[in-house]
Amino acid sequence: MLAVDSKIRQIWNLVICLLSVSSVLLIPLSLVYHIMPPAVALAFSLVLSAAYLADIGLEFNTSYRLVGKVVAGRLAVSRHYLRQGFLPDLIAAFPWYFVVLAGLVPPSSYFTLLALIPLIKLVKANRLLYSMAEEKVNPAILRLVLVVFWILIADHLISCAWIIISGNPDGLAPFDRYVRALYWATTTITTIGYGDITPDGTTQTLFVILIEFFGAAMYGLVIGNIAGLIANIDVAKTQYKEKLEKVNAFFKFKSIPLEVKRKIDDYYAYLWETRRGYNELAILEDLPSALKETVALSLNQDIIAKVPIFAAADPNLIRDIIVKLQPAVFTPGDYVMRAGEYGDEMYFISQGSVDVLSADEATKYNTLAAGSFFGEMALLLSTTRTATVRANEYCDLYVLDKATFEAVAGRYPGFQGSIKKMAEERRLAIEAAKRRQEIEAAKKK
Amino acid sequence: MLAVDSKIRQIWNLVICLLSVSSVLLIPLSLVYHIMPPAVALAFSLVLSAAYLADIGLEFNTSYRLVGKVVAGRLAVSRHYLRQGFLPDLIAAFPWYFVVLAGLVPPSSYFTLLALIPLIKLVKANRLLYSMAEEKVNPAILRLVLVVFWILIADHLISCAWIIISGNPDGLAPFDRYVRALYWATTTITTIGYGDITPDGTTQTLFVILIEFFGAAMYGLVIGNIAGLIANIDVAKTQYKEKLEKVNAFFKFKSIPLEVKRKIDDYYAYLWETRRGYNELAILEDLPSALKETVALSLNQDIIAKVPIFAAADPNLIRDIIVKLQPAVFTPGDYVMRAGEYGDEMYFISQGSVDVLSADEATKYNTLAAGSFFGEMALLLSTTRTATVRANEYCDLYVLDKATFEAVAGRYPGFQGSIKKMAEERRLAIEAAKRRQEIEAAKKK
Amino acid sequence: MLAVDSKIRQIWNLVICLLSVSSVLLIPLSLVYHIMPPAVALAFSLVLSAAYLADIGLEFNTSYRLVGKVVAGRLAVSRHYLRQGFLPDLIAAFPWYFVVLAGLVPPSSYFTLLALIPLIKLVKANRLLYSMAEEKVNPAILRLVLVVFWILIADHLISCAWIIISGNPDGLAPFDRYVRALYWATTTITTIGYGDITPDGTTQTLFVILIEFFGAAMYGLVIGNIAGLIANIDVAKTQYKEKLEKVNAFFKFKSIPLEVKRKIDDYYAYLWETRRGYNELAILEDLPSALKETVALSLNQDIIAKVPIFAAADPNLIRDIIVKLQPAVFTPGDYVMRAGEYGDEMYFISQGSVDVLSADEATKYNTLAAGSFFGEMALLLSTTRTATVRANEYCDLYVLDKATFEAVAGRYPGFQGSIKKMAEERRLAIEAAKRRQEIEAAKKK
Amino acid sequence: MLAVDSKIRQIWNLVICLLSVSSVLLIPLSLVYHIMPPAVALAFSLVLSAAYLADIGLEFNTSYRLVGKVVAGRLAVSRHYLRQGFLPDLIAAFPWYFVVLAGLVPPSSYFTLLALIPLIKLVKANRLLYSMAEEKVNPAILRLVLVVFWILIADHLISCAWIIISGNPDGLAPFDRYVRALYWATTTITTIGYGDITPDGTTQTLFVILIEFFGAAMYGLVIGNIAGLIANIDVAKTQYKEKLEKVNAFFKFKSIPLEVKRKIDDYYAYLWETRRGYNELAILEDLPSALKETVALSLNQDIIAKVPIFAAADPNLIRDIIVKLQPAVFTPGDYVMRAGEYGDEMYFISQGSVDVLSADEATKYNTLAAGSFFGEMALLLSTTRTATVRANEYCDLYVLDKATFEAVAGRYPGFQGSIKKMAEERRLAIEAAKRRQEIEAAKKK
Repeated sequence: MLAVDSKIRQIWNLVICLLSVSSVLLIPLSLVYHIMPPAVALAFSLVLSAAYLADIGLEFNTSYRLVGKVVAGRLAVSRHYLRQGFLPDLIAAFPWYFVVLAGLVPPSSYFTLLALIPLIKLVKANRLLYSMAEEKVNPAILRLVLVVFWILIADHLISCAWIIISGNPDGLAPFDRYVRALYWATTTITTIGYGDITPDGTTQTLFVILIEFFGAAMYGLVIGNIAGLIANIDVAKTQYKEKLEKVNAFFKFKSIPLEVKRKIDDYYAYLWETRRGYNELAILEDLPSALKETVALSLNQDIIAKVPIFAAADPNLIRDIIVKLQPAVFTPGDYVMRAGEYGDEMYFISQGSVDVLSADEATKYNTLAAGSFFGEMALLLSTTRTATVRANEYCDLYVLDKATFEAVAGRYPGFQGSIKKMAEERRLAIEAAKRRQEIEAAKKK
Repeated sequence: MLAVDSKIRQIWNLVICLLSVSSVLLIPLSLVYHIMPPAVALAFSLVLSAAYLADIGLEFNTSYRLVGKVVAGRLAVSRHYLRQGFLPDLIAAFPWYFVVLAGLVPPSSYFTLLALIPLIKLVKANRLLYSMAEEKVNPAILRLVLVVFWILIADHLISCAWIIISGNPDGLAPFDRYVRALYWATTTITTIGYGDITPDGTTQTLFVILIEFFGAAMYGLVIGNIAGLIANIDVAKTQYKEKLEKVNAFFKFKSIPLEVKRKIDDYYAYLWETRRGYNELAILEDLPSALKETVALSLNQDIIAKVPIFAAADPNLIRDIIVKLQPAVFTPGDYVMRAGEYGDEMYFISQGSVDVLSADEATKYNTLAAGSFFGEMALLLSTTRTATVRANEYCDLYVLDKATFEAVAGRYPGFQGSIKKMAEERRLAIEAAKRRQEIEAAKKK
Repeated sequence: MLAVDSKIRQIWNLVICLLSVSSVLLIPLSLVYHIMPPAVALAFSLVLSAAYLADIGLEFNTSYRLVGKVVAGRLAVSRHYLRQGFLPDLIAAFPWYFVVLAGLVPPSSYFTLLALIPLIKLVKANRLLYSMAEEKVNPAILRLVLVVFWILIADHLISCAWIIISGNPDGLAPFDRYVRALYWATTTITTIGYGDITPDGTTQTLFVILIEFFGAAMYGLVIGNIAGLIANIDVAKTQYKEKLEKVNAFFKFKSIPLEVKRKIDDYYAYLWETRRGYNELAILEDLPSALKETVALSLNQDIIAKVPIFAAADPNLIRDIIVKLQPAVFTPGDYVMRAGEYGDEMYFISQGSVDVLSADEATKYNTLAAGSFFGEMALLLSTTRTATVRANEYCDLYVLDKATFEAVAGRYPGFQGSIKKMAEERRLAIEAAKRRQEIEAAKKK
Repeated sequence: MLAVDSKIRQIWNLVICLLSVSSVLLIPLSLVYHIMPPAVALAFSLVLSAAYLADIGLEFNTSYRLVGKVVAGRLAVSRHYLRQGFLPDLIAAFPWYFVVLAGLVPPSSYFTLLALIPLIKLVKANRLLYSMAEEKVNPAILRLVLVVFWILIADHLISCAWIIISGNPDGLAPFDRYVRALYWATTTITTIGYGDITPDGTTQTLFVILIEFFGAAMYGLVIGNIAGLIANIDVAKTQYKEKLEKVNAFFKFKSIPLEVKRKIDDYYAYLWETRRGYNELAILEDLPSALKETVALSLNQDIIAKVPIFAAADPNLIRDIIVKLQPAVFTPGDYVMRAGEYGDEMYFISQGSVDVLSADEATKYNTLAAGSFFGEMALLLSTTRTATVRANEYCDLYVLDKATFEAVAGRYPGFQGSIKKMAEERRLAIEAAKRRQEIEAAKKK
C-alpha cells in the first residue's frame, strides 16, 4: 500500500497534473487545427489513456488520510476511492480522443467534441495541486494562483471556441489566427475591450455575451482574491498597530508624560519584534500540560545548564520547578528590585543583563547576564533586599516566588541546602564589594 | 392558519417567485415586440393578477416569526401584514398589463409603461428567496447570488429600454435585435465597452451615461461581494495559521530545539483537524449549565458504558461526576504519569491508547484503549504512582482529581467501595505482571 | 454663542453645502458656455461671497466639541477657528467670480480660472456632511456615499475641462456638447472606454492619460469601499456561524448523538435571535458598577414588581440583591432542578415558563411564568428539592445562591422573615396538591 | 561605522532612490530616442556607476538591525551584506550603459538592452523606501503608494517597449510618439481600452496579450490594496459599533426603559471618545509590572501632588498604594455612595467632579473636583457612609479598598496617622455644615 504522502505518489501526482494540462492545451488545438501529425495525436491519446488507467490502479493502492490518521486497509481504500473520484477517473481514462481520431464518429460533427471529455481530469489535477501545496503555502495565495491558472486555461479554451465560431475571416496562418483569438479572449476577460474584434451575427453575439459574463466574473474573482489576500496579510500587524493607537489615544486623553509614552511605545515595538506581540504566558497556557512541561524545559535549558544549584538536582525537582517559573519582561532602566524593599521572589535571567547596584545607585557591584540568577535570599530569609537591581536592556526574566519554592523544595531537602549555601556566598561577596568600595572611597578622600 | 415554514407555503413562495421572474422577462419584451399573441398575453396578465390576489389572501392566513416565536393569531397576522407588504402586493395584483392590452390607454404612449408596475413584486420575490435560503446558505454567498440574479434582470430591462430608445437602425429581426441590445448592455455593465455600438444623439447619450454609472456600480458590487466573501472564507484558517506563526516566531526568538517545535506544530495540526482549533473546555463553558450536563453525558457515554464502576452507580452520581471531568490532550510520547511521582488525579480514556510501563520503561505491563481508566489509586490512597503511563498516540483523556472525587463520592458510599475494590484488583494484576516478568527475566538468565 | 449641534447651525451647514455644490455646477459651466445671463451670474457671485462671509461670522460664534465636551468660550472658539478653517473660508469668500465677470482680468485667458477658487469650499462641505451624518450612518456607507458624490462632481469638472481642451469639433449645441463631454468622461471614469471619442494631438492625449489614471483610481476607490463595506457587514453573523461550525466540527469528531447536536444548534439560534450571540453576563460586566446597578434594576423591575417578598423590602436591599442575581438560560425540556437533589439556589423567572412536577414527572403541580420564583426553600433550609422543575420553553432565569442571600439578608432581618413565611405557604400548597392528586388517583382506582 | 538610521545614511538612501528612478526614466528613453546628447549620456552613465560603487562601499560601513539590536561589528556587517544585497549591487554598478554608448556592442542589436541592467537597483530603491517609511506610515497605505509607484514605472517601460515594437506609423515627433505610447499603455493598464490603437501583426498581438494580463493584474492589485486598506480602516470603529448594536439588540429584547438605554449609549460614546473603547484596566494589565508602576505613577501624579496625605509619605508607600488603585468610571448622575450604606472603599478623583449631598439630597455640602478624595473614613472605621456622593459629569475615579489599604499602611505607621487626622477634620467640617444648614433652615421658618 503506497503512503498518501510518499515521494513516489507525489511525483505521480505531478505527472498526472502535467498530462492533464498538456491535454487541455493540445486536444482543443488539434481539433481546430490538427497541429499534431495523426501518428503523434494517436500516440498522445493512447499514452493519456494508459496513464489515466495507471492512475486508477494506483489510487486503489494508496492510503488516505482521515482526521489525522492514515487509513491503509485495502478494503477501506477501495471503498473510499469508489465512493469518490473513481467514476470521473474512469470516464477520463476512456480513449475518447482516439475514438475521434480513428474516425469512429463522423469528422467535423459535434461528436468530435467527445475528445474534450478527458479534460475533466483537470478537476482532479486542481485538487492534487491544492493538496500538495496546502501545507506549505498561505491558503489565500494558493487560491489566487489556482484562479489564475484556471483563467489561463479558460482563456485558451475560449480562444479555440472563438476560432470555431468566428472562422478565419482574414485568412491568417493557424498560429497567427490562434494568437488573434487569444488576443480577443484576453482583451475581453480582462474587461479591456478594445473593440477591434467584435461579434458578427447572432450566434457570435450570444457567445460573446456569455464570455463577457464569464470574463467579468473571472476578473472579479481575481480582484476579490487579491483584495481578500491583502486584507488578511496585514491583520496581525494592523491589530497590533490598532492596539498601540488605542493605548496612545488613552494616554493622550490622560496626558501622560512623553517619556513614559515613549517607554511604552518602545516596549510594544520590542514585543512585536521578538514575539509578534504575543504574550509568552498565553502561548504556554494554550498547550496541554505535558507539552507545556517539554517546552518549559527547552526554554529554560540554558538556565538549568548554567545555574549551579540545578546541576546536581533531581530531574523531578527541575521539572516541578521549571513549569512554575513565571516569565516577566523588564524594559531598559526598569528596577527589578530596590534595596530596602521587602521581596519574596527570586529571578532567573533568560535574556538580557542587569546591574546590581548599591541602594544609592552610586556603586555597581556586578553585572549579571543570561543564565544568572539573583534575589535567592528572599526565598530563604524574610528580609529586605540588600541591593538594587536594574535592567540594562530588554530582559526576559523568570520569577520563582517563595510560596512555590517552599511547596516544591519541601520535598527535596538536598536542594534547599545548596540554595542556602549559594545565598550565603553571594551575600558575602556583596559585603566584600561594599567594604572594598568604602576603602577605595576613603582612599580617594 | 398556515405555518410560515410549512411545505405548502414554501412551494407557494416558489410559485410567486417564478411568476414574478417570468413577468419581468415577458412583459417588457411584449411591450417592445409583442412576442406573445394577444390571447396568450391577456391570459398571462389575468393569471398573474389572480395569483397575486391569491398571495394576498394567503398572507392573511400565514403565521409569522417574531424573535424566535411563531405568531399565529388572526388579528396579529392581519395587522402585521397590513403594516408591511400589503400595499405593494395590492398594487402589483391590479391587472395593469390587462389595462394596457385592452387598449384602455392610448397604445404606443408612455402609459403602456403602466404594464411594468407588477414588476415591483420582484422585491418581494427577492425577500422570499432570501428568507428561504438564509438558513442553509452562507449569507455572503446568498447575497452574491442575489446580486447576480438582479444584474441579469437589470441586463434584460436595460436591453429592452435600449431597443425602445435606439430603435432598430440595422433592420434586424426581433430576436437578433434583442440579442444585439443584450450584447450592448452586457458589454457596458461588465465595463468591457467594445465601442462598436455607441449612442447617437443626446437622448441616447444621456441614457448611456446613466447605464454606465449603474453598470459600474453593479460590477463594483459584484467584485465587492466576491472580495468580502473571500476575505471571510479564510478567517478561521487564517487566524489559526497566524497564531501558529506567532508561536513559531516566539519560539524562534527563544531558539527552542527543532524537535520540540515539531511537536508543537503537530499538536496544533491535530487540534485544527479534530476541532478546528477550538478548545473543548471553551465549547462547554459557553453552554448553559443544563445543556452542558446533557453534552457531558453524551460525550462520555462510552466511558460510562464501559467503565465497570459506573455500571451500577446512581444516575445522580454519574451526572455529578461527569460534569466535573476535565478534558486533557496528550500528544504521542507524552508522559501522563511517571512511576514514583506523587499524583492525585484519575484518568479516563476518551480517545486514543496509552502504555502502562515499569519505572525504567523496559517492561510494558499493559496497553489501555478508549473506555479504560487508570490512576484510580490516587483518589483513594495518598501514595506515589506505581507505574509510568505514556500516550501511544494523540489521546483525549478526562481527568478527575481527588478533591472533586471526594466531594461527590462522600454522598454516595456504595460508589466509594466499588472504586476501592477495582483499585485493589488492578494493583494485584500489576504486581502479578511484575513478578511474572521477573521470573521470565530470571529464566532467560 | 451658537451650539455646534443646534438646529440653526445644522440648517446653515446645509445651506453652505447646497451653495458650494451649486457653485461647482454653475461656475465651470458658465466659464465654458456663459449659461447664466451676466446679471444672474453677477448676482450669484455676490450672493455666494456674502453667504461665505456670513459663514465666517457664524463660525466665530459657534461652539465646538473637544473630547466629549462642548467648548463655548469666545476666545477659545476664535483661536480654534483661526487655527483651522479660517484661511480657506476667507479665500473662498473673496468674490473671485465677480472679478472675472467684471472684466478685471483679460477674458478668455487663464486668469478666468480664478473664478474656480471658491470651489475649495467643497472641502468644507464634505466635512460638514460627514460630521452631520456621522452619528446616524454606518461610517463605511457614509464614506461610500461621499466618494460617489465626489466622483459625480469630478465627472462634471472633467467634462467642462474636456470641452475647453477638445473644443466642439462636431459643432453641437451647448447642452448637446456638454452631454457628449459628460458621456466621454463617464465612459472613461467607469473604465468602460467605448473609444468612439479619443484624444487628438498631444495636449489632449496628456489630459486623457491624467483622467485615465484618476478615473481608474476613483473606480478602484468605489470598488474598494464596496468591498470593505460588505466585508464588515457580515462580520457579526459570520463570526457566529463560524463558532457554530467549530462547535459542530468538534461534536462531529466526538460523534455526539444527533438530538443533542440539534439541541445545541437550537440554543445557539435562540442566542442569536434574542441577543445576537452576546452573553448577558458579558454585557453587564462591561459596564461600570453604578450603571450595572441601574441596568440590573431595570432588567428585573418585573420581578421586583411581581415578587411579593420584594414589595415591602428596603430599596437598599433590593439594590444589593439584584446586582448579585446571576442570569441563566434553560432550553425547552431542561431540568432546572430535580426532586431529591441537593440544591442551594433560588430562581426568579425573567422570561418563559416552567412546570413544577412530582419526582416521577407523572403529576404537574403547577406552571410558573415570568415574574414567579421557586426554590426559595433552599435558601432557608439545608434540604433536598421537594419537586422537579422543568423548562417549558426557552427560559431566562436569575439565580440567587444561598451564600449571597445570607450575606445580604443578614443585614435586613425583616426580609428573612417574609421569605420564610412565603416558603412555608408554598410548601403547604405543594403538599396539599400532592394529597389531592393521591385522593384523585385513589378514586380512579 | 555608520549607524543604519543615521541622518547621513537616510539622505544617501534618498540619493540612491532618486538616481535609480532617474535611470529608469532616462535610459530606456535614450535607447529609443537618444534624448540625451552623447556627452551627457556618457556622463550620466559614469555618475550612476560611481554612485552605485560608493553605495557598495557605504554598505560595508553601515550597521544593521537584528531583532531589536543594532549590529555594528565590521565582520558581521560585511558577512551580512555579502550574503544579501551585494551581488545585485555589484551587477548594477557595472557601467553597462557606458558599454552600449561606447559602441562596445553592435548598435541597434538586442545587446543594447544590456543598458537596462542597472534598473535592478530599483528593487533596492523599493526596499529602502519601504524601510524608511515603515515606521511612520500605515503599512497598507505604504503598500498602496509603492504599488502605484511601480505601476507608473511599468507604464513608462511598457510605453518604451511599445515604441520599439510598433515603430512610429504616423511619423510623429519623438515626444508626441512617447505621449501616444504612454496613452496606449495607460488605456490598457487601467482596463479602459479605447481601442483606437490596436496591435498589428502577431508579434505586436502577443506583446499586447502580455501587457493586458499584466495590466489587469496590476489594476486588480491596486483595487485589492484599496479594498484591503478600507476594510482595515474601520475595524476599530466597526467593532465598537457592532458591540453597541449587540448590546442594544439585547436590551431591546429585554425591553429596557429608554432612559437607561440612552445612559448606556452615552457611556459607550464617552468610552469611545476618551479611550477608543479600550478599558483602562486592560491597558495596564498588558504591561509588565515595572512599566505598570511607572504608568500608574504618571497617571496619578496629579492625585499624588494634590492629596495632602501623600505629600509627606514615603515614596515606597506611594508606589505600593498607587499600583493597587482600581480605576472606576461613573456617568453623570450616578451615585458613588449613598448616605447610610455600608462601604469599605475610598475614592480619588482623577477627572470630573462630584457633589457631596445630605442623605435626602436636599443639601449640597460640597463639590469635589479632580485631585480630591473622599470616603476615607471607610478605611478606618467600620461605619456607614455619612453623606451621599453623586457624579456631576463623567468621572474617572480610583478606588482604594480597605483590605488593600490595611495591607500596605500596616507597614507605614506614620501614613495611617495622617489619614486618621484628615478623616477627623473632614467629618467635623461636614457636621459643621449640617448644623449651619439646620440653623439656616430654622431661621427661614
